[in-house]
Amino acid sequence: MCVFCKIINGEIPCSKVYENELVVAFLDISQVTKGHTLIVPKRHVENVFGLTKEESAAIMEASVYVANKLKEKLNVENVNLLNNSGVLAGQCVMHFHMHVIPRYGNDDIEIKQVEHEPNFEELGKLCKLLNE
Amino acid sequence: MCVFCKIINGEIPCSKVYENELVVAFLDISQVTKGHTLIVPKRHVENVFGLTKEESAAIMEASVYVANKLKEKLNVENVNLLNNSGVLAGQCVMHFHMHVIPRYGNDDIEIKQVEHEPNFEELGKLCKLLNE
Repeated sequence: MCVFCKIINGEIPCSKVYENELVVAFLDISQVTKGHTLIVPKRHVENVFGLTKEESAAIMEASVYVANKLKEKLNVENVNLLNNSGVLAGQCVMHFHMHVIPRYGNDDIEIKQVEHEPNFEELGKLCKLLNE
Repeated sequence: MCVFCKIINGEIPCSKVYENELVVAFLDISQVTKGHTLIVPKRHVENVFGLTKEESAAIMEASVYVANKLKEKLNVENVNLLNNSGVLAGQCVMHFHMHVIPRYGNDDIEIKQVEHEPNFEELGKLCKLLNE
């Protein structure tokens, strides 16, 4: 059984900060920054591709709840929501989880995205394909 | 008016891939990777802290829809969902947006998180605070 399923069924303890019928939120034990929390669906679902509508809604509602709790209790004003779905996206535990990561400046997370010059012909083709 | 509000009201064109009553999804013109899409609430809301329950649900449902569309049409099997809320988190356009970023390996995004050794005393204190 995966480590998150063991947390959900109580075999492994966790520092829970929110729970409802569909999801649970607990502090990541490897706190990237203070308050780093994971939102996890109770059902074992590997990644974003397999989430139901109800789970999707519950995950984001819980993420917003946690972000505001971090704001209220730790004065957090900056936060990243991050989900890694798939090994090439950096996923390690193969049970969907949304990271809520408070940002304080000079902290231990770095996100580098190289943006590209707009290519409107390519965008048009891609848009057509995704609307099929 | 912010650039996303102009896209939403039609002043600026976009490559739309999904829309419902509450949110719109369109291709990021600066495609970090092929298929890079933004999910944006129609109401101008700056960041995650201000989302309503209904908007939260709609954003994540649309993110899952887009991820699966990218899988279906571009064979995407790996994806990051990323929201930057606040300047210290890397936010540039001050209207909430969730990035859906396909990952193909050797691509132009890098996410570095330095994890820390678990400190269970600290986790316990933090958990208590966040449950108040």
